[in-house]
Amino acid sequence: MTTLKTEINFTLYHYWRSSCSWRVRWALNHKGIAYADRAINLLQNEQNSPDFLAKNPGGYVPAVEFDGEVFGESLAILEWIEETHPASPLLPKSPADRLRVRQMCHVIASGIQPIQNLAVMRRHSSDASEQAKWASHWIATGLEKFEALITPYADQFCFGGALSFADLCLVPQVHNAIRFNVSLLPYPVLARINAHCLTLPACIASAPQNQPGAS
Amino acid sequence: MTTLKTEINFTLYHYWRSSCSWRVRWALNHKGIAYADRAINLLQNEQNSPDFLAKNPGGYVPAVEFDGEVFGESLAILEWIEETHPASPLLPKSPADRLRVRQMCHVIASGIQPIQNLAVMRRHSSDASEQAKWASHWIATGLEKFEALITPYADQFCFGGALSFADLCLVPQVHNAIRFNVSLLPYPVLARINAHCLTLPACIASAPQNQPGAS
Repeated sequence: MTTLKTEINFTLYHYWRSSCSWRVRWALNHKGIAYADRAINLLQNEQNSPDFLAKNPGGYVPAVEFDGEVFGESLAILEWIEETHPASPLLPKSPADRLRVRQMCHVIASGIQPIQNLAVMRRHSSDASEQAKWASHWIATGLEKFEALITPYADQFCFGGALSFADLCLVPQVHNAIRFNVSLLPYPVLARINAHCLTLPACIASAPQNQPGAS
Repeated sequence: MTTLKTEINFTLYHYWRSSCSWRVRWALNHKGIAYADRAINLLQNEQNSPDFLAKNPGGYVPAVEFDGEVFGESLAILEWIEETHPASPLLPKSPADRLRVRQMCHVIASGIQPIQNLAVMRRHSSDASEQAKWASHWIATGLEKFEALITPYADQFCFGGALSFADLCLVPQVHNAIRFNVSLLPYPVLARINAHCLTLPACIASAPQNQPGAS
């Protein structure tokens, strides 16, 4: 894919392994929005440096900066991208269809990711095997709900034949599932969609292993 | 407030104490959208009854039913309400302002609520005092971020002088904070906004203690 230079003075703060960062990178690549790349190393706690906190009080990644302001939260950023760059849409047109796609997103973005993220795992237990058990439980429980939800609507993608926010949430979460040894066998529909998405140029360009600092 | 009967065959499945249910009830009351009321008792596990799961595979509340379909996830439902009932808006007009309001929502809707909900607390520990410690930690941590985020924008409400999705997320979360004995003294801005919102008729009508089944 040729990335069109449609934005200047637009910066993405992200971490290669953060699943929420991948959602936003993928949308930017899909829409052809150029961005300045600022890696924030979560393992080195760079998100809590005074410099970054002054810009972004939440201390989260991903965050975007434009017109002198910094904004966080991946789903909020996705909505902004869709509103300001409507070409190559990532939401369907009818309100009911948009509701269904956003519901799919939240099953992952509220129902799985926040519970299995690093800070929550570490607070639950200092023991690595307990942390992994915690993460894999919430991932499996959430993917089961996601599979049931998408099955009546799925085709090449979670919602029919067009890429949407739901796929942008799914694939990074499946990446985490694999890291935590969660079997995808019980979820054939989402596994098939995940495999298809991983062939798309914008997905590949935004994938964790293709970011600066990936190890 | 006089509730206008602008919708028929529209059902809300909710639980009086669920903070996510309150978000949706408040929006419906604010917009004057009439709804049929179906209480789902989470303590009696009614969300996992075969009947409810057949309609709503996630088994979550709140959920709404119209045109023969059931949809879940409170923020997705809020977006649908705003798209289909634009009068008495709950989002500002400019994309950057909408991004800021949605960011505020997610600090609560992804960053606090999912981690302190009943199922996650119970999985963390079977001990009631450990559960309370867990919940109050995540609520306090999240409200601190929320306070820092809204302070430059807050007036009567989280984002200036108009009610928005951000207030609909804040007030139910503060209600939970009080239940878990989290002091609001470190968060004077959000505490002031919360107190103001609690005087609004649509907030009062949608509050937990005013729902069927409240105890």
